[in-house]
Amino acid sequence: MIRLKDNFFAPRQKTNRESTIPSSLRRCEETGRIEALKLQWKPGMENMPHVFWDSDVAKVMEGMALELLLNPDEKLRDRLEKIIDLFVAMQQDDGYLNSHFIQVEPENRWKDTFNQHELYCAGHIIEAAVAHFKATGSRKFLDCACRYADLIIKTFGNGPGQKRSCPGHEEIELALVKLYHASGEKKYLDLAQYFIDTRGVEPNCFLAEHPEMADPDPAKTSARLANHQAHIPVREQAEAVGHAVRAVYLYCGMADVAAETGDRELLAACEKLFDNIRQKKMHITGGIGATSIGETFCGEYFLPNDTCYDESCAAIGFALFCWRMLKLTGKEKYRETLERLVFNAALSGLSLDGDKFFYANLLEVTPYTFEHGSTRRQRQKWFDCSCCPPNFCRFIPQLGEMFFRCEADTVYLDIPVAAEIESEQYHLQISGDYPAGGRITVKAVRADNLKVICREKEFSISSGETISFEIELPVKVIHANAAVASDAGKAAIQRGPIIYALESVDNKGVELSSLLISSEPDFQLEDMEIGNIKFKAITASGWEEQIDNPDNQLYFEGESRLVPRQLKFIPYALWQNRGRSSMTVWVRKKY
Amino acid sequence: MIRLKDNFFAPRQKTNRESTIPSSLRRCEETGRIEALKLQWKPGMENMPHVFWDSDVAKVMEGMALELLLNPDEKLRDRLEKIIDLFVAMQQDDGYLNSHFIQVEPENRWKDTFNQHELYCAGHIIEAAVAHFKATGSRKFLDCACRYADLIIKTFGNGPGQKRSCPGHEEIELALVKLYHASGEKKYLDLAQYFIDTRGVEPNCFLAEHPEMADPDPAKTSARLANHQAHIPVREQAEAVGHAVRAVYLYCGMADVAAETGDRELLAACEKLFDNIRQKKMHITGGIGATSIGETFCGEYFLPNDTCYDESCAAIGFALFCWRMLKLTGKEKYRETLERLVFNAALSGLSLDGDKFFYANLLEVTPYTFEHGSTRRQRQKWFDCSCCPPNFCRFIPQLGEMFFRCEADTVYLDIPVAAEIESEQYHLQISGDYPAGGRITVKAVRADNLKVICREKEFSISSGETISFEIELPVKVIHANAAVASDAGKAAIQRGPIIYALESVDNKGVELSSLLISSEPDFQLEDMEIGNIKFKAITASGWEEQIDNPDNQLYFEGESRLVPRQLKFIPYALWQNRGRSSMTVWVRKKY
Repeated sequence: MIRLKDNFFAPRQKTNRESTIPSSLRRCEETGRIEALKLQWKPGMENMPHVFWDSDVAKVMEGMALELLLNPDEKLRDRLEKIIDLFVAMQQDDGYLNSHFIQVEPENRWKDTFNQHELYCAGHIIEAAVAHFKATGSRKFLDCACRYADLIIKTFGNGPGQKRSCPGHEEIELALVKLYHASGEKKYLDLAQYFIDTRGVEPNCFLAEHPEMADPDPAKTSARLANHQAHIPVREQAEAVGHAVRAVYLYCGMADVAAETGDRELLAACEKLFDNIRQKKMHITGGIGATSIGETFCGEYFLPNDTCYDESCAAIGFALFCWRMLKLTGKEKYRETLERLVFNAALSGLSLDGDKFFYANLLEVTPYTFEHGSTRRQRQKWFDCSCCPPNFCRFIPQLGEMFFRCEADTVYLDIPVAAEIESEQYHLQISGDYPAGGRITVKAVRADNLKVICREKEFSISSGETISFEIELPVKVIHANAAVASDAGKAAIQRGPIIYALESVDNKGVELSSLLISSEPDFQLEDMEIGNIKFKAITASGWEEQIDNPDNQLYFEGESRLVPRQLKFIPYALWQNRGRSSMTVWVRKKY
Repeated sequence: MIRLKDNFFAPRQKTNRESTIPSSLRRCEETGRIEALKLQWKPGMENMPHVFWDSDVAKVMEGMALELLLNPDEKLRDRLEKIIDLFVAMQQDDGYLNSHFIQVEPENRWKDTFNQHELYCAGHIIEAAVAHFKATGSRKFLDCACRYADLIIKTFGNGPGQKRSCPGHEEIELALVKLYHASGEKKYLDLAQYFIDTRGVEPNCFLAEHPEMADPDPAKTSARLANHQAHIPVREQAEAVGHAVRAVYLYCGMADVAAETGDRELLAACEKLFDNIRQKKMHITGGIGATSIGETFCGEYFLPNDTCYDESCAAIGFALFCWRMLKLTGKEKYRETLERLVFNAALSGLSLDGDKFFYANLLEVTPYTFEHGSTRRQRQKWFDCSCCPPNFCRFIPQLGEMFFRCEADTVYLDIPVAAEIESEQYHLQISGDYPAGGRITVKAVRADNLKVICREKEFSISSGETISFEIELPVKVIHANAAVASDAGKAAIQRGPIIYALESVDNKGVELSSLLISSEPDFQLEDMEIGNIKFKAITASGWEEQIDNPDNQLYFEGESRLVPRQLKFIPYALWQNRGRSSMTVWVRKKY
């Protein structure tokens, strides 16, 4: 059991419990997502159950179950059990479990795996069921999920009467590996592997399902398939392409299967795909999927700040992938990227009061940022397609597990925030104020010659002992690769894992794009609080560019001058918690 | 009759005649657009006639007719007559004329004016017919167009049995005013006025046609309607919104109706909409419609360079609108914007060899620019939705008419390029090398005390006289309004009406975003030719930023230094005519 005690994440977990989960449940009710599970919908009625509604509810349920693991709560459990009862009651005799297809288009079950979301929803139901089983020991929901998974095993495969296919929206692969662990049934791992090994393999199952997708121009056909990572076998994929959320969920499943089977080729593909993202397709915040057009990865080095997408779900999925790869390999690059994500892009989507969300996480927002459905400049209460809010419900309770790798004789402090770790073998208290401060203290309440490793530092600790060490946290001026045109002439400010941003509320009366920072600034740290989060703000002297434009023309000749001005930076993930504002991560440099 | 004799546009007109029109005709044949007019298509056959195919063919036909006006050519005329014969033969007994709806879904004629393109196609057919009538005096195609317009008059209106509606894709409004002029029949002007006066007026005709568009949230309903400029009556519209091509075609129609009826309110709306674009929603090239998502205008001051859209058709339509407003009001702002467009965004979409096209006209293209269908980095031969290529066919022959306003006793040299102007009253030869050089000479071969006006300069000229004057053409360093974050810290180089750009072929071995220019550069002019165009290139000393990044990391700390380097600029509209390349209009400034 790992309990976070720090100033950055522990308050987020409290807010998840007290605000995000309850408000998400409320939205699921208000929008008909819970009602849909009762199978009372008839054609002509409003709130037609949507193809991905079950997944939204299931993600909240997973969050509730994970929350129960951390903080047993009778009322919460009761609430969860009631929704589980709806799923159990909804399940068809053959195990089928999808509120949309049961009610809206029963004739189209499994017909369109490329575009539809049955397997995706199934994945989230399975994950929720596994979490519930872990939290409560009850097999009620787990058995229900197994029955559904058994139907899927029966339906998909290369045997006679089976459909040779794989999920159009990946997710179930990683869920099936969890189900394998919870149930002990290897058939679920086999199904995960089947889905992974079928993807992109000739003859392409999606072209069999959708012959109309085959364009006379093979490049167009390939691009359509690549949007779902199905253009070539996954083992041959070396560039992260297509819909970013689908992609990282797939990569999680690939890593999970590789972990179970020892498949080096699959692991190598995971590493290549990760390297491609980290070296060429990731914003400095860890955000991925830079365009809203198709919610896809762009080509290499195309990372606009003002029109990017960087969906919250993609950042969460990428963090889940990094976590798996870190556990599998222990490599620093995965740890570093996981840390980048959890402090930045994977939490920027969630308001500090817990009930408002960004779908897209831009790195530059001005008073003029084009909205595309009002989701760019201000966090929203909910969305028509609302995958992101419930994703936080289930992501946040897992943070502790992501930060420390606890083996029998070794604990890795991968993200060494204050926390309490208790297991059969040991009980550690980690204190300090990381990453506001760099001093980390580990006290062994109980331990027998336990190895504690934090990056390059390694210690042994036994019961009653305390060790203490320091992580350097200089403020850094970061450049982007010269190929990233959007960041040219600009710098980002980073301290430890935190990417900082200028927010208009701290830098008033000016467009943030008019501000410049010195290439060797005099940084000062300052204690600051927003909502329930305490952190270090950073100030530095800089300049404001003023250009004479008396007639407020759009394009003009005018004298420009630089006026000295103090700049103040806060962590990117905390912006837009003090009303409507502007923000930029990348700041112009003075030469 | 106005014949251009200059170095910038006259070669383009030659290329239009010799390359763009023939190649567009060929594409229309290859893709089935001509075949579709023969009504031989049956369900199940390939090349199903598309809803906007007729408009593509009609635009090429209009270009052919306008070309005949300038350069009589028996072969070209013969070719045009043959296609006209297909339209005439296709026309149904009741006058209906649309190859898609006749063959593919006859049951859906006029059913969906909001989404479908019948009225849009009709507009282009009418324009082609009017041009043919003007060029040849033949009423064959004009009568066909009148019969179709008469059916539209019968179909649409507030009378019993009529459909109260207006075009979902505007264009026919301006065409009907042309038809009124050609035929002398006021009923066509009345229909144009009816369409304009019905748009956005309660009860909204599009909501009557599509009740499902009415969202519980009125803001969403309004946004859907605004995409087609139908959210409020056109007279109340003060912000340019929605699909940019639709918008500017509508504004042309509004200006045309205002010109005929003297409707001050309608003219005032046109002026407000123009001012809104020019002051807040236009790239420095004149390009409009900054996002590919819905091909719409963005909010004010949101003008990204690397992800913008700025469709070729939108620039052409905006030029047509500026031209109308200039003729109506004589105001300098319309002249200046028309000139900005014709030298920059309205021609950048067309290759100098005449048969390749940009759909989107970005202001910054890097080797990493995300393609969205391969149309951003290299001009393409044709498109599935190929409205832009044929638009050039008909736009380019009209350039002369746009540059000079020829009244009985006054000639306005709005865009004073070399040209020959002949009318009943006078014959002028305008020489000089504008805008490469600023010296303009006007020789009156024949004229009787004719007033010649060029901007603030005014002369009288009679037969045999020559006048000469100078337009100053300094190279200017242009800033964008501080609200345009994408241009912050950057300058654009402009000389006369020409916006310049850095192209990689002239500035090798470096990302263009690594280059900086001084805020007071030492500009030099240099004669240069690309294709058949002669112009002045601009050079200036500047710097290249080099940042140490030995491991080619995406984000890194590194020493930065500026290395002196010569920069070379060419006119934006001429880029990407020397192979695959990168380009940027806005260049970083050194402080």
